[in-house]
Amino acid sequence: MTQTGTLHGVGVGPGDPELITLKASRLIASCPVVAFLSADGKPGLARAIAAAHIAPTHLELVIDMPMRVSRDDGAAAYDKGAAAIVAHLKAGRDVAFLCEGDPLFFGSFMYLAERLRAFFPVEVTPGVASPMAAAARAGVPLCARDDVFTVLPATLPDADLMRHLPQAQSVAILKLGRHLPRIRRLLARLGLLDFATYVERAGMVGERILPLADLDDAQAPYFSMVIMSRASVAA
Amino acid sequence: MTQTGTLHGVGVGPGDPELITLKASRLIASCPVVAFLSADGKPGLARAIAAAHIAPTHLELVIDMPMRVSRDDGAAAYDKGAAAIVAHLKAGRDVAFLCEGDPLFFGSFMYLAERLRAFFPVEVTPGVASPMAAAARAGVPLCARDDVFTVLPATLPDADLMRHLPQAQSVAILKLGRHLPRIRRLLARLGLLDFATYVERAGMVGERILPLADLDDAQAPYFSMVIMSRASVAA
Repeated sequence: MTQTGTLHGVGVGPGDPELITLKASRLIASCPVVAFLSADGKPGLARAIAAAHIAPTHLELVIDMPMRVSRDDGAAAYDKGAAAIVAHLKAGRDVAFLCEGDPLFFGSFMYLAERLRAFFPVEVTPGVASPMAAAARAGVPLCARDDVFTVLPATLPDADLMRHLPQAQSVAILKLGRHLPRIRRLLARLGLLDFATYVERAGMVGERILPLADLDDAQAPYFSMVIMSRASVAA
Repeated sequence: MTQTGTLHGVGVGPGDPELITLKASRLIASCPVVAFLSADGKPGLARAIAAAHIAPTHLELVIDMPMRVSRDDGAAAYDKGAAAIVAHLKAGRDVAFLCEGDPLFFGSFMYLAERLRAFFPVEVTPGVASPMAAAARAGVPLCARDDVFTVLPATLPDADLMRHLPQAQSVAILKLGRHLPRIRRLLARLGLLDFATYVERAGMVGERILPLADLDDAQAPYFSMVIMSRASVAA
C-alpha cells in the first residue's frame, strides 16, 4: 500500500529570487513534483523565481490557466489542475505548488487546496508578500503603533474605495490594470495623492518607482501596486 | 577616506528560523555588525530566529529597549540605538538590523531608519510577515478575487474596531494582549466570531491554534493574533 503524498503550497516570494525562504527552497528540493500555473502556454513568474531550485530530476507539472477567463472556465481549469495533482498524490508523490508571493494572499493555490483539502494532506509555506516588497523598495513604512493597514483591489467600485481609503493609515492597492487613472483620481479627490507611491516590478528587472502624482500611464501591468502611506513613524 | 556603511533593515520572518529568506541570510553573513533589540536585558526573538547565521566573528550590537515605556522613553532609547549604529556606519561598517517578520510592518527598524535616512544609505530586505505565517499554520485564506484584507491593532477603541471589522472579508488583529476578551466580544456582537481563529506562536515551539470561540483566556501573549477570514475562495 502506498501512502498518499502531501500537497505543499509554497510561497516563493514577490519576484526577486533571493527573497525565497530557506524552507521553500528545501521543500522544492525534497518534492519529486513541482507544479505551477502557466498562462496561455507561458509559465508564470513563480516558475522563474524558483528556477535555481528546480533540478532536471524534478517532474514539472504545468497547470494551464487561460488569462482573462470567465469564472466558470477558471473553475474548469482548476478542476483539471487538481485532477493532475491528485494522480501524483495518489502515487505517493509529494507535490510543491509554486506560488508567487504568499500562497494565501491572492494566490491561485487556494482554489486547488479548496478542492483537495478533504482528501489529502495540504501544507502551506508562507512567503514574502508583494506589499512588503513594494514598501521595502519604495522606502515607505506600512504600519506602526496603532495604525490600520488595508489591502484593496483596484477592481472595487468607487464607493467602496472612497469608503476604505481614508480609514487606514496605509493602503496597498493591487490589481491596478486599467483602473490606474481612476485610483489616481480618487486619491486626489480625498487629498491622499501626495502620500501615494507607484511601484512596478519591485526588486525585478524593469523596476519603476515614482510618486503616483507624477504618473500619467493609462494602465498598469500585473506586477504593480500603489502604496499610500501615512504610517505613524515619527518620534 | 573611509566610505560610510549601509544600514540594512533585515526581515528575518515570523518565528520559524526556516522562514528567513536567502537574501536575509546572505546580508547577515556579509555585514560585520549585527544589531537587534533587547527588552529589559533579554535579546528579542529576531536574534534567536537568525542565530544560525550569526558567526563568532560578527560584532553584535545590542540595542536596549525597555518594555512598556512611555513614548518619550522609547524615543530616547531609539536615539541611543541610532547613535551606536552611527558609530559603525561612520567607520565604514555595514550594519544588519534584525527585524522579526517584515521591517516595515510594525517593525522597530522604522524608528531607527527615520533618524538615519538623511545621513546614511538605508536598505530594507522584506520578510515573511506574521499574518501570512498565522494564516498558513491555521489553514485559512487571507484574500482572493476582490477581497479586502485589513490589519487592525487590538488597541484601537471599540468604535474604530466596530467600523473596520465588518468592512473587510479578512482581518488580522494584532497586539491582542489584555484586549483579547474585548475582541472576542466585538466579533460576537458582529456575528463574526465563527469566522475567527486564534493563533499563538505560529510555527514555533508552544504553537496554539483554535477557534476564537473556544478560547477563554483573559489575555494573549505578544506573539499571537486573531485571523477573521471570509475570503472568497469558493469555486
